[in-house]
Amino acid sequence: MKRRDFVKGAIAATAAVGFSGCTREMIEGKKSVHINRRKKVKLKLATSWPANFPIMGTGVDRFAEKVKAMSGGSLEIKIYPKNILVPALAVFDATSSGQIDAFHSGPYYWKGKNPAFALFSGLPLGMVASELSCWMNYGGGYDLWRELYGKYNLHPFVGGNTGVQMGGWFRKPIDSLEDLKGLKMRIPGLGGEVMARLGVNPILLPAGEIYTSLERGTIDATEWVGPALDIRMGFYKVARYYYTGWHEPGSILELTFNKARFDALSDEHKAVIEYAAEAMTTEMYHEFMDENAKALEKLKELNVQIRDFPPEIVEAAKKALQEVVKEQSAESADFERVFASMETYYRRIKPWTDISEAKYLSIR
Amino acid sequence: MKRRDFVKGAIAATAAVGFSGCTREMIEGKKSVHINRRKKVKLKLATSWPANFPIMGTGVDRFAEKVKAMSGGSLEIKIYPKNILVPALAVFDATSSGQIDAFHSGPYYWKGKNPAFALFSGLPLGMVASELSCWMNYGGGYDLWRELYGKYNLHPFVGGNTGVQMGGWFRKPIDSLEDLKGLKMRIPGLGGEVMARLGVNPILLPAGEIYTSLERGTIDATEWVGPALDIRMGFYKVARYYYTGWHEPGSILELTFNKARFDALSDEHKAVIEYAAEAMTTEMYHEFMDENAKALEKLKELNVQIRDFPPEIVEAAKKALQEVVKEQSAESADFERVFASMETYYRRIKPWTDISEAKYLSIR
Repeated sequence: MKRRDFVKGAIAATAAVGFSGCTREMIEGKKSVHINRRKKVKLKLATSWPANFPIMGTGVDRFAEKVKAMSGGSLEIKIYPKNILVPALAVFDATSSGQIDAFHSGPYYWKGKNPAFALFSGLPLGMVASELSCWMNYGGGYDLWRELYGKYNLHPFVGGNTGVQMGGWFRKPIDSLEDLKGLKMRIPGLGGEVMARLGVNPILLPAGEIYTSLERGTIDATEWVGPALDIRMGFYKVARYYYTGWHEPGSILELTFNKARFDALSDEHKAVIEYAAEAMTTEMYHEFMDENAKALEKLKELNVQIRDFPPEIVEAAKKALQEVVKEQSAESADFERVFASMETYYRRIKPWTDISEAKYLSIR
Repeated sequence: MKRRDFVKGAIAATAAVGFSGCTREMIEGKKSVHINRRKKVKLKLATSWPANFPIMGTGVDRFAEKVKAMSGGSLEIKIYPKNILVPALAVFDATSSGQIDAFHSGPYYWKGKNPAFALFSGLPLGMVASELSCWMNYGGGYDLWRELYGKYNLHPFVGGNTGVQMGGWFRKPIDSLEDLKGLKMRIPGLGGEVMARLGVNPILLPAGEIYTSLERGTIDATEWVGPALDIRMGFYKVARYYYTGWHEPGSILELTFNKARFDALSDEHKAVIEYAAEAMTTEMYHEFMDENAKALEKLKELNVQIRDFPPEIVEAAKKALQEVVKEQSAESADFERVFASMETYYRRIKPWTDISEAKYLSIR
């Protein structure tokens, strides 16, 4: 409903100003219908990714190209990779304060500001990419996200999804719950908190230190993203067991604007950004699929062992997750509210996913 | 590659004409940067769907609203539901000849022109929606589709996807291959040809006659789409057994333009159409998911029995499909070529889907 009203409003607004422009033909006395002179707008967008970072980074560059093409060059979004204008994890505050106009990052990075923000990235053992997008648009997700980010003068869009992430790289096979006890694993976020309850010692490490730590045995395991990005990190050289995923079943990436700046844009530019963000989301999701498929072939050639966690670990993780959610909900009313919204939508969408995509993929 | 080159071309082109416009401020002697006067373009698009048809029809209306909003009203696509300008299944020829500018329909409708066209809708027991989009963009699907449609002066885009469709409504339970023998079922396309090899008598019926035929027992079963659209047809009143899907695992809907008209558009308008089509595709796919989930709840309340075909039927369908594909490939070099391209991509993407989405959905 809201989206349609917005689009209708945009059309009404452009129609109202439709003939206020002046064309060369008009000055020269010729008659011709040309509409909408446009003021050139330039925005600055900083990302949390290095320059040319595959898929997440290159996808944002393509988003800016899209916006420029669709707006006939009238809206230019200049992309700054991490640490050029602001540090990778300062983009939220820099956009909130108006130092820059927008950022591309992941909502889980801001859980220190509000534990509920982590949920806008998705939930361990929860919804996959397409279901999360449905929750955003039809289950109240966007309303909650924009309300809570609004307090920081921010206006978020879904701006990509990684798809199902892998469970991580292990130096030794994990055949039972017992095998997890005492393991040092680089795993952040809610997934890490669940792992902690299964006896794992979750470690936080900057990206640049993970490989060496794994090689030296300072850590026993690490998760990262999926084959396409993991293969570049070289983990397969020092950990042979690659486990299928459960803790990040479809992580949302965000494209977030300074709210006052976004509100001040023309309806035309707002529409261009909204739909370019939708196209970016789909393209990143598909590019992850395609690149993961190619990298998986290479990893198999390199004799990486693809394994599933045994059912007792999955069941224990489900129980532990309920405890984590209960604790976080007790500590944060926002977390409780956002989780309740997700859970309600999950109960609506899961029975359909079960008999459609899930069932079909199991029989084809 | 091609997409990026196109976008870059669009930016270069708009930059070149960027300051050719004339603004009120310029006449009045003030300086201000306003760019790109635009000629108003109006296009006619006919669909194969009735007015206000849920998701597929309303999604196209929303596409036109998007295009208008993003182009500041400079590109207006007027939507004509079926039988207003041209009959539902005359849209391909009417667009090819230039009587209208574009259409929204499904590629399987044109298999009489070229058997290969059916494959651009997807393949029974083949790729799901996201995989098909990957094939289009990264596996050569779009190149083949545009080459073959180009011979009809047409330029196609993916313009929606239904997601996994249900296997159909049956008056009696199907517990074995034996139960299919002699059954009269309304099922078109490659799915129908597979079913014929399993002993089913596939019937073609216009939408308006299916319910009555099922009620009177003239047919024993029918497939349609999924819960959201099927519930409106009332099939649950006369057939209690609703089977999960295999024959349409993610049917692509098409948004196809007269090629000469599309080529004559400005780069800005081309970009607007391209990205609005991407957004439409995602929105229809998600809306189908959400509406199917809601309708499924209602169907369960109405005591509809959701069933899976027994494994022996699925295995027999896989074998029969290979025969159908072999025969069609022998008859049509285009079919053989398009199928080979799909099959190659399927072999690349399936191992990743198996350990990501498919695995995850089975354990969560």
